[in-house]
Amino acid sequence: MEKEKVVLILSGGLDSTTLLYDLIDRGYDVRAVSFNYSQRHVRELKMARKTCKSLKIPHTVLSLKVLNQIAPSCLTRKDWDVPEGHYEDESMKQTVVPNRNMVMLSLATSYAIGIGAKRLFYGAHSGDHALYPDCRKDFIDKMKEVIKICDWSPVELEAPYWNMDKGDIIMRGLKLGVNYKNTLTCYKGGKKSCGKCGSCTERLEAFKKANSDDPIEYNYE
Amino acid sequence: MEKEKVVLILSGGLDSTTLLYDLIDRGYDVRAVSFNYSQRHVRELKMARKTCKSLKIPHTVLSLKVLNQIAPSCLTRKDWDVPEGHYEDESMKQTVVPNRNMVMLSLATSYAIGIGAKRLFYGAHSGDHALYPDCRKDFIDKMKEVIKICDWSPVELEAPYWNMDKGDIIMRGLKLGVNYKNTLTCYKGGKKSCGKCGSCTERLEAFKKANSDDPIEYNYE
Repeated sequence: MEKEKVVLILSGGLDSTTLLYDLIDRGYDVRAVSFNYSQRHVRELKMARKTCKSLKIPHTVLSLKVLNQIAPSCLTRKDWDVPEGHYEDESMKQTVVPNRNMVMLSLATSYAIGIGAKRLFYGAHSGDHALYPDCRKDFIDKMKEVIKICDWSPVELEAPYWNMDKGDIIMRGLKLGVNYKNTLTCYKGGKKSCGKCGSCTERLEAFKKANSDDPIEYNYE
Repeated sequence: MEKEKVVLILSGGLDSTTLLYDLIDRGYDVRAVSFNYSQRHVRELKMARKTCKSLKIPHTVLSLKVLNQIAPSCLTRKDWDVPEGHYEDESMKQTVVPNRNMVMLSLATSYAIGIGAKRLFYGAHSGDHALYPDCRKDFIDKMKEVIKICDWSPVELEAPYWNMDKGDIIMRGLKLGVNYKNTLTCYKGGKKSCGKCGSCTERLEAFKKANSDDPIEYNYE
């Protein structure tokens, strides 16, 4: 039987990379889509490419530089500093790119319709903080509804990790044999991860929860 | 009292141009946003610019060329022919750019959040045919709901013409003094309009309904 063609939004971070392995494991013919929005951590796209190459998955990078033109945040502006510490801090608000997820989901939906895929996956999870309004369950549910009717041929949005946290995802990924060396999480996007920004802090805590060591290199002073 | 800042998606066609005059009439401080998606009828952007200049409205053109990369349609591909006749015809399906409206609405929402506007207007109307799934009332309603929650600072999507047809819109526009010479409707996008494509056919019928003459030039053979 022919495999079902599906689209996955692959950031190159650990959640969507785990989901890629998961979808292959479930027998889907996966097409990965990544976005280049001039993110400071553009190195995550290299990781996405590496992963797709190693798994022989077709990978398309779409340009979203227009997001930076519209609504700069410190994730896209090299002259703004990335704040350190936990996501809960007020300072982390600077890391919000307004409505980024809706923009990505709508373009990935166009892509899915264009190639005749009926399912679109993305790696939103419960650890996607209260800080990001467009990561909430309610947002995902409402996007699901509108994506279902935006075309005559309906597309189903699926976020199978929405009720898992990053620790759970890593535990699942380790079973699936995910190569976490080819993932990038640090917002600063350097060759070695900083280990201090909200994103690194969360990643390190998640590996701890999964009783595993993070295979990437950190730039501790 | 300071005027309320609002964002309008302005295509340069007659519906959104009428809505611009309408919003100014209602006392809003309007910021117009247009999209360049390599549309064959890119001349509509010139019309949008002309209108904004004459009304002293700030105008931003955002690049959406990525849509053409994702999902080509005959509206964006110069080597495909635009079909003639009514929208109802099967051949008009080629004019659908998949999920174009969701992509534009999500980017315009990012823009609105970025400039602190609380309201986003667009000119969807009842004449936006059954052909375009992303012009239906149900689609607008579901987009309204998700746009309301995509950011901490809620944005209200408004489509005040959703239950009017193009004839009604022209009648309203004539009262508001809209200069319809600065609007483009023809999908072929030539200097003179073709008068034959689905878009021209509908425009001509609408002016007839409004008992008025269309001031633009047509290229009748």
